[in-house]
Amino acid sequence: MPTIDVPRGLKGVVVTETALGDVRGTEGFYHYRQYSAVELAQTRTFEDVWHLMFHGTLPDAARRADFTAGAAALRRLPADVRDALPAIARACAVSGPLSGLRTALSLAGAAAGFRPLYDIGADQRRADALAACALVPTLLAALHRLGRGLEPVEPRDDLAHAANYLYMLTGQEPDPARARAVEQYLISTVDHGFNASTFTARVITSTGADLAACLTGAIGALSGPLHGGAPSRALDTLDAIGTPDRIEPWIRERVLAGDRIMGFGHPVYRTEDPRSRMLKGIARGFGGPLVDFAVQVEERTEAILAELKPGRELHINVEFYAGVVMELCGLPREMFTPTFAAARVVGWSANILEQAEDSKIIRPAARYTGPLPPQPVPAA
Amino acid sequence: MPTIDVPRGLKGVVVTETALGDVRGTEGFYHYRQYSAVELAQTRTFEDVWHLMFHGTLPDAARRADFTAGAAALRRLPADVRDALPAIARACAVSGPLSGLRTALSLAGAAAGFRPLYDIGADQRRADALAACALVPTLLAALHRLGRGLEPVEPRDDLAHAANYLYMLTGQEPDPARARAVEQYLISTVDHGFNASTFTARVITSTGADLAACLTGAIGALSGPLHGGAPSRALDTLDAIGTPDRIEPWIRERVLAGDRIMGFGHPVYRTEDPRSRMLKGIARGFGGPLVDFAVQVEERTEAILAELKPGRELHINVEFYAGVVMELCGLPREMFTPTFAAARVVGWSANILEQAEDSKIIRPAARYTGPLPPQPVPAA
Repeated sequence: MPTIDVPRGLKGVVVTETALGDVRGTEGFYHYRQYSAVELAQTRTFEDVWHLMFHGTLPDAARRADFTAGAAALRRLPADVRDALPAIARACAVSGPLSGLRTALSLAGAAAGFRPLYDIGADQRRADALAACALVPTLLAALHRLGRGLEPVEPRDDLAHAANYLYMLTGQEPDPARARAVEQYLISTVDHGFNASTFTARVITSTGADLAACLTGAIGALSGPLHGGAPSRALDTLDAIGTPDRIEPWIRERVLAGDRIMGFGHPVYRTEDPRSRMLKGIARGFGGPLVDFAVQVEERTEAILAELKPGRELHINVEFYAGVVMELCGLPREMFTPTFAAARVVGWSANILEQAEDSKIIRPAARYTGPLPPQPVPAA
Repeated sequence: MPTIDVPRGLKGVVVTETALGDVRGTEGFYHYRQYSAVELAQTRTFEDVWHLMFHGTLPDAARRADFTAGAAALRRLPADVRDALPAIARACAVSGPLSGLRTALSLAGAAAGFRPLYDIGADQRRADALAACALVPTLLAALHRLGRGLEPVEPRDDLAHAANYLYMLTGQEPDPARARAVEQYLISTVDHGFNASTFTARVITSTGADLAACLTGAIGALSGPLHGGAPSRALDTLDAIGTPDRIEPWIRERVLAGDRIMGFGHPVYRTEDPRSRMLKGIARGFGGPLVDFAVQVEERTEAILAELKPGRELHINVEFYAGVVMELCGLPREMFTPTFAAARVVGWSANILEQAEDSKIIRPAARYTGPLPPQPVPAA
C-alpha cells in the first residue's frame, strides 16, 4: 500500500468536511453552522443552539418548546446507573469528576441499550445523542454531591438546561442572572473547531460503535492536559497573585522565567479570543472586587507580554473570564472543566451524527522502524 | 494555516513511527518487534510476549518468573469496582460484554488513581498498563458470571494468564491443552498493525490523558462493527450451514447474491491470514466433527470463491478458526470478541507507552463546507 507522509500530529491534515462550524483564528471569529457563536450565546437559549447543531436549523417557538420539553424529560437517572453512582463517586475521589463522567456515561449508554451507529437510522442516532446530552448534567451533579456525602438532587423539568444544572449541583434554584450567565458560557463552548476530543469521537464513530463508546472516548481525550481547557487554572493564577500591587512583579518574574501564564495565549487565535470578550462583558455585568482584579491582571499581563514577548500576540483566552464567571455563579472550582464537558458533549454529538452519515472507517498507517524481522525467536 | 488533503479515512497516511511491529499483507506475515508473531505464539508464553511488547525484549527465565508473578498479583478486583460490578452487569445485559468492559475498566482506572500520562514517568506508565492488562480478564469473567446470576470466581495467582482466565470464567481448572490453545490465540491477537482502536488509543494518549481514558476509547472503537474481529460470526455461519451436503448450495447462493461470507477475506492480507494457518493447526490437534466440518466448509468456500470471484484472493481470515478453537476450548460464544479484547489490551497498552514518549498532540483539521457565515441570527 502506498504511504503518505504528513506533518507530525496530523497538523493541517484535512480529515473531514463539516457543516457544523469553524474557527477563523486571524479574524477572532468562530461560528456554529452559519451563525456567529457569540451572537448565538447573546441572543438564544442553550436548547436553541443544541437544536441548531443536531438539526441544522434554529427552532421556531413551537419547535423550541417541543425540543426543550423532550430534552428535559430525559434528565432522570436510570435505575442501574443510580445504583452504581455511589461506587463510581468513591472510586473517582482522587482521579476527579471527568473520570466519573467517563464511567457513568459509559454505563448510562449501556443501560439505555444504545446500538451500533450504523445499525440504526439517523433519527435513532439523534435520539440516543439527545438522551446522552440530557443526562450529562445529572450525572455530573449527582457524582459531585455523592463525593461530598450529599444526596443527589432530582432534576426539575420546569427549569431550562443550564438552570437545572445549577439547581442539581446546589439544591437551590439559581437566580436568573447567574443561570443565564452559565447558559451563555455553555453556548459559547458547544464546539470549537477540530480539537482532539472531537477527532477522537469521529474516529470511534467511523468504526460504527455506539454513541456511548464515541462520547466516552471524547471525554477521555478532553481529560488530557494537552487538550487544554481548564478554566480553574486561570482563577488559581488570580489567587496566587493575590493583590493588585503584586501583579507586576508576579507576572514579570514568571514571563522572564519562561513560564506560561495560565489564561493567556491560544494555538489558533492571533487576536483576543472572542469567547473571552463576551465572558468579560458578562463578568463586568456582575461587577465586584474579583472582576475588578481580573481586569487589572488582564491589562497588566497583556502589557508585560507585549513588552517582553513582542509580536507574539498573547491575549487572554477563554479560560480567563470563564473561570471568573463560573466563580461568580457559584460553581465549585473542580466543576469548571466538567461544566465545559456538559456543553461540549452537544458539539461532540453533532460531530458524531455528521460522521455517521459517512461509512468510511478512519484507519491511518504507521511506519515500522524497529530491527528488521524475522529474527529467530530465542529458546525460552 | 495551510491545509493538506489526503485520502478518505486517512488511508495510507503515516501517523507515527513504531518499533512495535507490522503486517506484511502480500507476504502473509506479521511480527511483534523483530519476531514472527506466529513463531512467538508457537514457542512462548503470553507473559513472555507481554514483556516483549512492554519492555522490548523477551525475558530470560528469572525475569519471566518475576514478570509473571507481578502480573498475577494484580488480578484482584479493587473494592469499589467489585461493588459496582453487579449494576454494570445488569446495565450491560443488552449492549453486551464490551460495554461492560468499557465501563468497568474506566472505573478500575479511576479507582487505581491513574494519573495523566505526561505527569508520570515511563516506569509508572508501564506499571499502570500492567495493572490494567492484568485486570481485564478478571473484569470480563466477573461480568460474564454476574450476568448469568453466578458469583464471580476469585483469580488464582498460581495459574498462567490464559489458564486463569478460563478458570475464572468456568470455575474449573482448564485442561492444559485447552489453556495452551487459548494462550496461543491470545498471543496471536496481541497486535496487528495500525487498526482503528490502536489509533484511537494513540490519539487519546497524545492529549496526555490517563491510561484508562486511552483504553476506554480503544475498547469503544473495537466494539464498532466496521472494526471487524467478531469470531462468533464465522461460527454462526457453520451453524447456519448445518451439514456437509448443504455447504455447496448455501455458500454458492450467498456469493451469487453478493453477500459477504463471514470468516473469509481481509483488508490487508492477499494471502491466507497467517493467524488462521496456526489456529487451524491447533483445531486439527483437537480433532472432532466440528473441526472436520470447518475444514470442509473452508475448502469448498475457497473453491467457490475462486470460481465465482476469480483474482480476488479471498481466503479464510483469523475469525474462522479462532471461533472453532474458542468453541473447542469451552468459551461461551458471546465471550469470543471480549477474549480478543483481553489480548489486544496488551497491544493497545504497548502503543500507548510508545506514543507517550512523544509529546505532540494529534490534532488534524476539518474543512467547513456549510453556508457562508456570518448570517444574522434570526430573532427567537
